[in-house]
Amino acid sequence: MPGDRYVHGYSPRESVRLTDQAGTLTNLLHNDTCYPAGSRVLEAGCGIGAQTVILAKNSPGALITSVDISEDSLKHAGDKIRLEEIDNVTFLQGDLFLLPFAPGSFDHIFVCFVLEHLAEPGRALGHLRPLLKDGGTITIIEGDHGSTFFHPENEDARHAVQCLVRLQQQMGGNALIGRELFPLLNGAGYQDVHVSPRMVYVDASCEALVEGFTKLTFTAMVEGVGPEVVKQGLMSTEAWDRGIAALYRTAEPDGVFCYTFFKATARKRAPGAG
Amino acid sequence: MPGDRYVHGYSPRESVRLTDQAGTLTNLLHNDTCYPAGSRVLEAGCGIGAQTVILAKNSPGALITSVDISEDSLKHAGDKIRLEEIDNVTFLQGDLFLLPFAPGSFDHIFVCFVLEHLAEPGRALGHLRPLLKDGGTITIIEGDHGSTFFHPENEDARHAVQCLVRLQQQMGGNALIGRELFPLLNGAGYQDVHVSPRMVYVDASCEALVEGFTKLTFTAMVEGVGPEVVKQGLMSTEAWDRGIAALYRTAEPDGVFCYTFFKATARKRAPGAG
Repeated sequence: MPGDRYVHGYSPRESVRLTDQAGTLTNLLHNDTCYPAGSRVLEAGCGIGAQTVILAKNSPGALITSVDISEDSLKHAGDKIRLEEIDNVTFLQGDLFLLPFAPGSFDHIFVCFVLEHLAEPGRALGHLRPLLKDGGTITIIEGDHGSTFFHPENEDARHAVQCLVRLQQQMGGNALIGRELFPLLNGAGYQDVHVSPRMVYVDASCEALVEGFTKLTFTAMVEGVGPEVVKQGLMSTEAWDRGIAALYRTAEPDGVFCYTFFKATARKRAPGAG
Repeated sequence: MPGDRYVHGYSPRESVRLTDQAGTLTNLLHNDTCYPAGSRVLEAGCGIGAQTVILAKNSPGALITSVDISEDSLKHAGDKIRLEEIDNVTFLQGDLFLLPFAPGSFDHIFVCFVLEHLAEPGRALGHLRPLLKDGGTITIIEGDHGSTFFHPENEDARHAVQCLVRLQQQMGGNALIGRELFPLLNGAGYQDVHVSPRMVYVDASCEALVEGFTKLTFTAMVEGVGPEVVKQGLMSTEAWDRGIAALYRTAEPDGVFCYTFFKATARKRAPGAG
């Protein structure tokens, strides 16, 4: 996962977006992840630390090691952790496929918004598994852009979302990975796989989600790839602009926006443990 | 809503499908609907009574009036109620737009899998509103075929689902109505509108849903319109067959299927009640 192949890029605006996203969605995605004091937790692919802060606050006694391939992202993550006065996180630069940990080093592994960017997510999960002690758990959170639907319907808007999926595919990722967590974890040898969809349903009765999710998270993310979509000729500038306008239109008082994240948990069972 | 314009038809197999559907989804859709003893409830559009049985059992003391336009469906519904020895339901044949009840006749109105078949769902909701007493509630449950996604992805399967949406549109209905419940209820003058999406997430860890939902409910429903789709030339027989096979493929051990129903509740507020 070299840094220059991260579809959303690394601009300052993108950092703001990722932080907004983490703030708005914290309860929906994280409220049921809390690791015991003293447990050793690996956060694989921490990026700029948007999820790291939440993880560390929800499990203040856990000993968290957060790894990312990008030195620059790690610097941002470190700043964030210091700003929040969090003291239970250690950062390490490294490749998910070449991590320098002994087998059984961790009680729990946490992976959030990472697999979608990998060409071989199943192989990554397979590489992480030996790092868990027997009986240890892995928790995965991923989105699925193909779960997006909205009112009013609009063909350009649907097309714009499909372009984002296609760009991520060009970079070796998979923006539809949320729905695949069950077979991916089973295929990588984990047991007791449990998947829980988390739909963000947004209508005008929840202003915070209209602003924080429909506009600042989802539509801003799609908008961000506009120049590349037009450059590649996937859509005309006019069609793209109509699509983006139609996405913002779903944030009006009679609009509705739906997107589903998937959260999966699984266990590394001791061989022969039944 | 003349009987011959119900997209799913009225064959015996269709009756079985509707009953399967009600059985599998009962908890997800109905567990939070329970009306007090003595309350007067209108079920608008009861069809063959698949939901009526659940409604009556969950609210055994309520006085339920179930209305449908089809005499034939009402006959089936009556048989079902007698078989289950349910005694708190009265059936009445009638058109939703011409119901013979005095204003304020009901404490609650219940509408399930009906609006999707109407050309003017908002007008229907507007016609029902005066039948509620001030402070009375309306509960709506609808599906949304555009919420469907699955793994493995398959273009013919997606196309087959879109054909079902198109056929329903040809008949004046809207198979994407679930997402619209918030603006529809607001537009019809109801207050305190609350929409709750109910996703059916199906993987191999839940055999009952694989059989009962992915195969017997959803794929069987799509399969049922195959002859009409081919007749209209919307898809070739070969493409259609590939699409149906791909839908069944999602029921294999590494497959995943997702569909979202929407349940909405709202209130008729007394004028000036704030």
